Amino acid sequence: MEVIGSASHEKAGLICRGWWWFKALVVGVATKTMKLGRDDPRRVIHALKVGLALSFVSLFYYFRPLYNGFGDATMWAVLTVVVVFEYTVGATLGKGLNRGLATLLAGALGVGAHHLATLSGEKGAPMVLSIFIFILAAAATFSRFFPGIKARYDYGVVIFILTFSLVSVSGYHADKILQLARQRLSTILMGGCICLIISIFICPVWAGQDLHNLIALNMEKLADFLEGFGGEYFESDHGDEKSASDGSKSDKSFLQGYKSVLNSKATEESLANFARWEPCHGFFRFFHPWDQYLKVGSLIRQCSYRIEALSDYINSDIQAPLEFKKEIQGACIKMSSESGKALRELASGVRTMTQNGSTDIHIANSKNAANDLKSVLKSTLTKNADLLQIMPAATASALLVEIIKCIEEIAESVNELGRSTKFKIVDPTLTALEIKQQPQTLLHRGIVNPLDTDCPHIFIEVDGPSDLSPPGNVNSKVPGGGASTSN
Amino acid sequence: MEVIGSASHEKAGLICRGWWWFKALVVGVATKTMKLGRDDPRRVIHALKVGLALSFVSLFYYFRPLYNGFGDATMWAVLTVVVVFEYTVGATLGKGLNRGLATLLAGALGVGAHHLATLSGEKGAPMVLSIFIFILAAAATFSRFFPGIKARYDYGVVIFILTFSLVSVSGYHADKILQLARQRLSTILMGGCICLIISIFICPVWAGQDLHNLIALNMEKLADFLEGFGGEYFESDHGDEKSASDGSKSDKSFLQGYKSVLNSKATEESLANFARWEPCHGFFRFFHPWDQYLKVGSLIRQCSYRIEALSDYINSDIQAPLEFKKEIQGACIKMSSESGKALRELASGVRTMTQNGSTDIHIANSKNAANDLKSVLKSTLTKNADLLQIMPAATASALLVEIIKCIEEIAESVNELGRSTKFKIVDPTLTALEIKQQPQTLLHRGIVNPLDTDCPHIFIEVDGPSDLSPPGNVNSKVPGGGASTSN
Repeated sequence: MEVIGSASHEKAGLICRGWWWFKALVVGVATKTMKLGRDDPRRVIHALKVGLALSFVSLFYYFRPLYNGFGDATMWAVLTVVVVFEYTVGATLGKGLNRGLATLLAGALGVGAHHLATLSGEKGAPMVLSIFIFILAAAATFSRFFPGIKARYDYGVVIFILTFSLVSVSGYHADKILQLARQRLSTILMGGCICLIISIFICPVWAGQDLHNLIALNMEKLADFLEGFGGEYFESDHGDEKSASDGSKSDKSFLQGYKSVLNSKATEESLANFARWEPCHGFFRFFHPWDQYLKVGSLIRQCSYRIEALSDYINSDIQAPLEFKKEIQGACIKMSSESGKALRELASGVRTMTQNGSTDIHIANSKNAANDLKSVLKSTLTKNADLLQIMPAATASALLVEIIKCIEEIAESVNELGRSTKFKIVDPTLTALEIKQQPQTLLHRGIVNPLDTDCPHIFIEVDGPSDLSPPGNVNSKVPGGGASTSN
Repeated sequence: MEVIGSASHEKAGLICRGWWWFKALVVGVATKTMKLGRDDPRRVIHALKVGLALSFVSLFYYFRPLYNGFGDATMWAVLTVVVVFEYTVGATLGKGLNRGLATLLAGALGVGAHHLATLSGEKGAPMVLSIFIFILAAAATFSRFFPGIKARYDYGVVIFILTFSLVSVSGYHADKILQLARQRLSTILMGGCICLIISIFICPVWAGQDLHNLIALNMEKLADFLEGFGGEYFESDHGDEKSASDGSKSDKSFLQGYKSVLNSKATEESLANFARWEPCHGFFRFFHPWDQYLKVGSLIRQCSYRIEALSDYINSDIQAPLEFKKEIQGACIKMSSESGKALRELASGVRTMTQNGSTDIHIANSKNAANDLKSVLKSTLTKNADLLQIMPAATASALLVEIIKCIEEIAESVNELGRSTKFKIVDPTLTALEIKQQPQTLLHRGIVNPLDTDCPHIFIEVDGPSDLSPPGNVNSKVPGGGASTSN
């Protein structure tokens, strides 16, 4: 009895554990799903759009007139929707065009190869076709190693190999090879059109807009660090006891945000590649200078590397003597916060597509602070006896000087972007609302009233409208970890 | 006559220009092709392998017994070869398994959905099927946003959606739906097997091996910089006039190599994802700790960010006074070159899968040099009057100290990798040849003879065999810009 009792007990325990495990799994997946959806609701919409496109294209099978027209080739419409429908309009358009053009070209070549093969008799044809397939597949596969082809036409090359092989060998059995090619091409065209229409007209996700926002967001992340760094580094000595007595760490996430910028290259490049396929939308033209965004992005990364080196000094074991820190504190906090403000202004300018002089004022302020630091350093040496002890703080300040240089380069590059995309030059007498209402009169460009020879890119100064609403959905999230670069 | 003469002249000029343009194009493409092939001959072999696989699978169409068995489903074999055959074995295997399993699962679900739909009558079936497709496609598409699924099962999800849609809607017209599913599955299986056999048995490219080599290569690039930095920074003052009179810059490529390390994250992660699919090969087991490689890679990148900050000081406008530079020169050159040597030893250890104590000796030497620097800095202040002037050199030396800390962390992580993958512990009494010949007796692990409490990871010291030949093709190039991550 006891044995049976313990066995049933064990079984109940096993079921209980299994149920608990299942519940934990479901709760875990549900939580992650909710988080993914909440982080960027466009992901949910994208999933629904794909479902809609597939349900729609499957109707081809049910309507007899359509199905009778295309027969089994109908499946190519389904296949096209599944593999072409991507997260952003640019990726979908790029894949659709790649697929369409590659099918057309390879189809024509395949028909040609099939005709040539038939000339060599029934026994020779398979050999001739095999040789053709070998040569074309090898050459096309090798071409995928060219970086330029890889970036924009990789999918097209795959479809080229696929279609050429299928058309040339299918022809060996199908008598009506031209009809076959025509059917496939038209179903692929239909599938592609359904993808494009749904992708563009139902809550479109533009890769160009995302790249634009990503560049602004990355600048804001660096600005968060720089605006917080001065206080964190120089005031940590005073706050040490306080935070220890609190027993809890305050939110230091602003010091970590820049880390995602360090590895942003791949995302930026893929967004730029997709953006190049996108038609004119909102403020973005077809030949929008996406390369300039990549240049700005690269300079932002350069700056983030220096910030990464600077971050070593926040929690360094060796802290400089308090009196030395106090001497350089004013200049360093100003350098850090002013350069942070400059970056924030640049980000805001990119988001609102405006140019104003406040960036250059902040840069000039930070350069002045750097000059103040130099004077302090010149006069400090006689008072401090130990160079070793003051080294960490001095190094941190030297890195800040390098960061200011980086930010100057970023500002120059953003101004270049502003000139080529005709950012609005902001007039300080207008309110934010008026600026939005009068785009035409402001769409001129030029350098107005330079304030200082050190700052050649200063436009009309403005203090007010830094909260201009951005064009389009500029507050939307960056498509991190999205499905945009797959297949 | 003159008009005709000038027209024909113009025409001849046009033809001449066209011919010149065509010739330039052909020469340009040929040069690039040669370079790509010479940089990594495995690319040429990969292209030939794809050609071979496709020619082979197209034979299915020509042999009547095979074609009669599968009919039009034969095309799925071709399609599978084109989309599954990737550059590395891991990527091919991952895609093949994803395709096979997803087809199996989605096929079963599709047949089930088709049966359920038939229960709701001829008119209700299309609606039920459409709803099924909508729900499954939307859910599966959303799942692609989960980073874990995206990294390893993205292709499987696409194939799942594709197969489910095709099987469930094809069933609406095909009476023999089970036969259709069986035919497709077996042709996909055949295509996948052909890919795998050719990928594994003809000059295989292992993603694991490539990741292993990439980690070693990245350490070598940082070592190149560090070994060269000291001489470049401290000796540039003496060499300035010489290089100016030469009129040509000497080869400074060793100072640029580290830049590719800054953006190596995406390549490392995709190689690790592919490597996880690969079976046991050479020294790599199925459950090889690829995550540890990613950790080492991440620490190497951390170090490269500091090096990027340090590189600012090589060509800085403000150079420290010669006498101060001379004072710290010895310590800094030693810090730089010893830390470079430590990295080179670590790289050589990874390449040869051995652990020896020389890394820790170099790290200890660089730390001693850092201590020497500290003494110099302590005594310097009284002699130098201008802190501002000595700042650049002092900052560079402070960054070198941070770099040494990074290298210590890298060494710790590489030792951890060595312990988990059982790197050989090198016995200094054996020659390089003997080490290669006696792997069994050396495949033990443990910490032997720690030399110093500062260096807990010191194994048996060895001076000799730094030129041990690596396992497998370790000198092969990293698949940069290759076709490995596509589709």
